[in-house]
Amino acid sequence: MTEETAAGPEARRIEALAAPLHHAEVAPFAPAEFEQRIERARRLMTERRLDGIMVTSEPNLEYLSGFVTQFAWASPTRPWYFVVPREGEAVAIIPEIGLSNWAETSWCRRTLSWPSPTPENEGLDLLASVIKKLPRRFGYFGVELGPETRLGMAPADLLRLGEMIRPFHLADCIPVLRRLRFIKSPAEIAHIRHICGIAGDAFDDLPALLRLGDSEKEICRKFAADLLLRGADKVPYTSIGTGPGGYSSIIQGPTQRRLGEGDILLIDTGAKYAGYYCDFDRNVAIGEPPVAAKRIHDLLWRATEAGIAAAVPGKTAADVFHAQAKVLEDAGIVLGNVGRFGHGLGKVMTEFPSNKPIDRTVLEPGAVLTIEPSAMFGDGKILVHEEDLVVTESGPELLTRRAPREMPVARL
Amino acid sequence: MTEETAAGPEARRIEALAAPLHHAEVAPFAPAEFEQRIERARRLMTERRLDGIMVTSEPNLEYLSGFVTQFAWASPTRPWYFVVPREGEAVAIIPEIGLSNWAETSWCRRTLSWPSPTPENEGLDLLASVIKKLPRRFGYFGVELGPETRLGMAPADLLRLGEMIRPFHLADCIPVLRRLRFIKSPAEIAHIRHICGIAGDAFDDLPALLRLGDSEKEICRKFAADLLLRGADKVPYTSIGTGPGGYSSIIQGPTQRRLGEGDILLIDTGAKYAGYYCDFDRNVAIGEPPVAAKRIHDLLWRATEAGIAAAVPGKTAADVFHAQAKVLEDAGIVLGNVGRFGHGLGKVMTEFPSNKPIDRTVLEPGAVLTIEPSAMFGDGKILVHEEDLVVTESGPELLTRRAPREMPVARL
Repeated sequence: MTEETAAGPEARRIEALAAPLHHAEVAPFAPAEFEQRIERARRLMTERRLDGIMVTSEPNLEYLSGFVTQFAWASPTRPWYFVVPREGEAVAIIPEIGLSNWAETSWCRRTLSWPSPTPENEGLDLLASVIKKLPRRFGYFGVELGPETRLGMAPADLLRLGEMIRPFHLADCIPVLRRLRFIKSPAEIAHIRHICGIAGDAFDDLPALLRLGDSEKEICRKFAADLLLRGADKVPYTSIGTGPGGYSSIIQGPTQRRLGEGDILLIDTGAKYAGYYCDFDRNVAIGEPPVAAKRIHDLLWRATEAGIAAAVPGKTAADVFHAQAKVLEDAGIVLGNVGRFGHGLGKVMTEFPSNKPIDRTVLEPGAVLTIEPSAMFGDGKILVHEEDLVVTESGPELLTRRAPREMPVARL
Repeated sequence: MTEETAAGPEARRIEALAAPLHHAEVAPFAPAEFEQRIERARRLMTERRLDGIMVTSEPNLEYLSGFVTQFAWASPTRPWYFVVPREGEAVAIIPEIGLSNWAETSWCRRTLSWPSPTPENEGLDLLASVIKKLPRRFGYFGVELGPETRLGMAPADLLRLGEMIRPFHLADCIPVLRRLRFIKSPAEIAHIRHICGIAGDAFDDLPALLRLGDSEKEICRKFAADLLLRGADKVPYTSIGTGPGGYSSIIQGPTQRRLGEGDILLIDTGAKYAGYYCDFDRNVAIGEPPVAAKRIHDLLWRATEAGIAAAVPGKTAADVFHAQAKVLEDAGIVLGNVGRFGHGLGKVMTEFPSNKPIDRTVLEPGAVLTIEPSAMFGDGKILVHEEDLVVTESGPELLTRRAPREMPVARL
């Protein structure tokens, strides 16, 4: 091989990456968006008898404050606290390093800071002094204790704070945040639709990215790179399954297994745009798929249709599950071992509620759900479909472009 | 514009993305790696008077169990628990959906599972029954309470667990995990060196990716896509600063600001390979930089040299700070407002210790550090350098290719 041909593909790769992209971006949230969130939060605090709440986790802190950062979530050294009282002004208690970043991105003008990292006391004195001054009507202060929460501070510090803010008692603010985030605003839905569109375009071109002999790792890297170039900000999740005639896990990989003729491939992606996720998947057959897989694919497509149709105001998450399960059970198919057939979607890739029999959450306009039926077949294989939608007054509205009824076939 | 020319760049982009990559991958950890980690963990438990520990956070659970997943960390719905007793067999208590993934990636063969999501009790009964059966010598069971921790379960469930495992008392296991992870094995260092090499190659080609008029968002997306195509698994962190003659924040962006002639650009990236991070940055001048910026750049380069030289066994994290600070202070420069001049690096982008005066952590062979001096100049501008190294018996060993002493200039 001459030096020229060796350098050729790399130079073309760089050239292709460098080409100007100039993406259309979704309009950032208007100030009124945050005013409404805070107003709703305060009403819910009153209902739940909380004098204020504090959030430290990525989705909840972003949701209430508008603060945009990668740093705070990639680096767990420094905690970032945002306090919203039931009455009075919200306050950010944040590391000094973040003051200019905060000022540029958050609507909240009141900030206190300390020269973090200071492991012996990461802003706790400041934080406690703010909380202790809040008007005390109920005596309870809400922090992130409940399900599906990933606390943004050391748990020991949260316990210490509980002692420091007496006579306030700690209570759980997750019911407030769940209720708030369950109903998405039109601006939030526009964000989710945008990232769904980007991922849909990438899925359409996925067959063109595949080469026989690619490892699953390589396929995921190419696919994630394509998502970024199309305008995704981050691609936290790209799971992949490949195997002859079907795959055996939908949350696994990527591994070093190499793509072969006769494989069926699944990619499920959680890509992110301006703090909002898509979460859906697509199947691709490498050459004509076996009859068994085609039949399951068609049943899952129909189960998805049924799930979409059931996602209307007044129905429950359980109803959405049962609508999907019935299509599969009527055909004598074993349901997938995922534990549910879809879930909430928004600032987190999977959020409340769960489409499963025990979840009686009543759907309302503005709820964003994934519809995600899965089925077992053959020798321990599983097949899965997934679409994203928003519940509206006039019925379900897809945020993803519907997958084709027949499994796409890549001829490599 | 004809349809053909419109389609051309997109087709070339897809072709460039699709080209076979077939990356060299680092050898996965040998079983002995985990045996040694567990053995060290047990010795530390005895020292700290703990009868066992449980981990739920991404870095600690991966570190001890070898479990590889994206799912558990992108989806906070289901907790994943890993219990390592001081004596006896380790146990994973995990959602059913993860059993095959666990079996394929972890060395630990003992698993218990439940059909999560089940919000009313996410495996707590199972978990408590395992802990209660542990041999009780000290009466303390360690969970992740301490600094720089991001708990992988609902805090309320941790408190509930504390009640359920009586007569065991909860204690903090973070001192054990810090000590374990502070000293990296040769295999861990190979992982960090690999991702540093990938990012170094991407930084070398960064000027070729830049176009006048690119937004900061577009630049970060192109750069992250290039990192993926070169073999990074994830790119959780790409901060960027741009501005005429210098930038004003090093943890911010990307914004919609467009690159212009005369700008200085910084990208700082935390890219990930097989569970390990690089964390370093590079500066690029768009056209000849002003004298003030060139002078600061040279001083920071020299401060970095001094920091590298100080990273030897027996010196402290504070010593590494002072070595860097002295170069800047001797030149009458105001230190950057970052709070430290580097930190530990490994399974998390920033980890213990902090290179700052209050941190007296003594360096030992196997410690991996970033050397990261920053300086203020002009009208609120900041400039920063960063390299990654490992402390060895025979001195500091760079894991990054050293940045050039003169700021690279891109002629766009």
